[in-house]
Amino acid sequence: MANQTGSLGEFGRIERFFRPLARNFPGALSLDDDAAIISVPVGKELVVTTDAVVAGIHFLPSDTPADIARKALRVNLSDLAAKGACPLAYTLTLAIGRDVDDDWIEAFASALADDQTRYRIELTGGDSVSTLGPVWVSITAFGLVDSGRMVRRSGAQVGDRVLVTGTVGDAALGLAALQGRLGVSDEDRAELSSRYRLPQPRSDLAVAVADFAHAALDVSDGLAADFGHLCRASGVGGKIWASNVPLSPAATKIISADPSWLPEVLGGGDDYEILLTAPPGAVPALVAAATGVGIALTEIGVIEPGGSSSRADIVDDEGTPLALPKSGWTHS
Amino acid sequence: MANQTGSLGEFGRIERFFRPLARNFPGALSLDDDAAIISVPVGKELVVTTDAVVAGIHFLPSDTPADIARKALRVNLSDLAAKGACPLAYTLTLAIGRDVDDDWIEAFASALADDQTRYRIELTGGDSVSTLGPVWVSITAFGLVDSGRMVRRSGAQVGDRVLVTGTVGDAALGLAALQGRLGVSDEDRAELSSRYRLPQPRSDLAVAVADFAHAALDVSDGLAADFGHLCRASGVGGKIWASNVPLSPAATKIISADPSWLPEVLGGGDDYEILLTAPPGAVPALVAAATGVGIALTEIGVIEPGGSSSRADIVDDEGTPLALPKSGWTHS
Repeated sequence: MANQTGSLGEFGRIERFFRPLARNFPGALSLDDDAAIISVPVGKELVVTTDAVVAGIHFLPSDTPADIARKALRVNLSDLAAKGACPLAYTLTLAIGRDVDDDWIEAFASALADDQTRYRIELTGGDSVSTLGPVWVSITAFGLVDSGRMVRRSGAQVGDRVLVTGTVGDAALGLAALQGRLGVSDEDRAELSSRYRLPQPRSDLAVAVADFAHAALDVSDGLAADFGHLCRASGVGGKIWASNVPLSPAATKIISADPSWLPEVLGGGDDYEILLTAPPGAVPALVAAATGVGIALTEIGVIEPGGSSSRADIVDDEGTPLALPKSGWTHS
Repeated sequence: MANQTGSLGEFGRIERFFRPLARNFPGALSLDDDAAIISVPVGKELVVTTDAVVAGIHFLPSDTPADIARKALRVNLSDLAAKGACPLAYTLTLAIGRDVDDDWIEAFASALADDQTRYRIELTGGDSVSTLGPVWVSITAFGLVDSGRMVRRSGAQVGDRVLVTGTVGDAALGLAALQGRLGVSDEDRAELSSRYRLPQPRSDLAVAVADFAHAALDVSDGLAADFGHLCRASGVGGKIWASNVPLSPAATKIISADPSWLPEVLGGGDDYEILLTAPPGAVPALVAAATGVGIALTEIGVIEPGGSSSRADIVDDEGTPLALPKSGWTHS
């Protein structure tokens, strides 16, 4: 924990920038101890998820400290939401490169403060280290569910409908635009790149997911790959109709002009939408709950029997599987 | 999560090397889901600590993957022990540099497996990422305590005795020897450097710490600095007699030959011993408990009243404070 020249130093930074983030969580002990205390109410269980982001891999060197802070926290919030868990607290490890100064940390912490309010989650501890390499952030986030009610990947049942929140593919197109691989209007570029830079965790849907979904995950490896993960974990097959997959106006325009972008939309990653399955009878209640919190929820497919020949495909209107990357998204 | 050329890839590595580490913790869901489930028994609370280690900062580039794995886990286990918590589970974020191959990961995971057995803790989730920089590991560890019984830094009371486990200063001397700043015999070099490379968390003392200690922390910033942290958090003063501080035979020899190493012994870091305070009447029971599990526990000081002029010092036999670094240990 070598000091940066002319900076507040590790202890000063914790006191100035991070302690205020922990003030609403008594078990954080004002970040003044070696550990935090988490009390789990009787009848509840803790849902724990860990995701890290690394400069040059998960975000662009040009991203601001606020972008990095929000992305690091939100990818974890997205996992909690998909599991039906309400946010509770998180621990943060921040590795500070040689080019990071106190202003950088202040902007980073300030963005965390905003998102803590927005998503009702509190900092409860962490570590701050120096690195000779790029900046990175690792977060472990905690949520609460009723005991036994965490929504798993493995709960999909034959006949379940497949639904997805929001729109798919914008982040992948945004990254392509930022990398200069895709030419778009300034307006579309701004919209799509903000989907890449700033995930929108569907935390407001967590309770409905817990109440109604048989299986769920957040789409981070790409719709095709994550649908495969869900079906494999559940021991089922299934299909998603490509024409039902909800697209933003910008993505619709791009694909209309050049359909060769479709695999990037359906196979690219970083969507941070919730992909879930639910019995047909629960779909209306789920959609109503989503509408009630301002989240689009679209039925896009169906779960089919498993078995050695079962497949999890995205298909065209004739039922022919599209050729898409399924092994998982490779960031940048 | 870009694949390394010719490797198993992220998913393959998780399946081969990390899934076996999670098999005894049902809530880890075989690392096959986006989150883990931790159930906390009624009457218990979760103690949560996070510590990261970074190549070139917290360990030497020459350290083996097994050394790195053990150090990363053990610095967290040391915090749990000092808080009186029994190890339960941990999440792991591993950042893989370009020079890391599957053999490296296998050796890393194998060392974790050994330590999981030794310290009775289970892997429950995590993330694996690529980095263009040095290897790093961030761990969040969970332990259990009876509700309300986590031992804090802030509980020291006037009249408490100050005690420390094991011996102090060996890791700092070991680092100095590894860096060529300190000439020692091959035997002493091996012993001291192993104290730097491989912390020995005092997990076996956790129950006694919870039962008897008023305040405790693990010595990672150096005895002088951490005693200051504890006294400041508790609003008290105190003194430690330098001549009472337990030293290894190797450290005793070095200081006898050259007393200028004393500040490094008392002020250096990475000891990972437990520094605790307890009422005088509890000292015999604490020492007996420590002896019962093969851990040396030595009375080294006393807690005194706080106030604006109070100090937390390490003093010589005349009571004169030694000049020591107190602001915290700067690694490497």
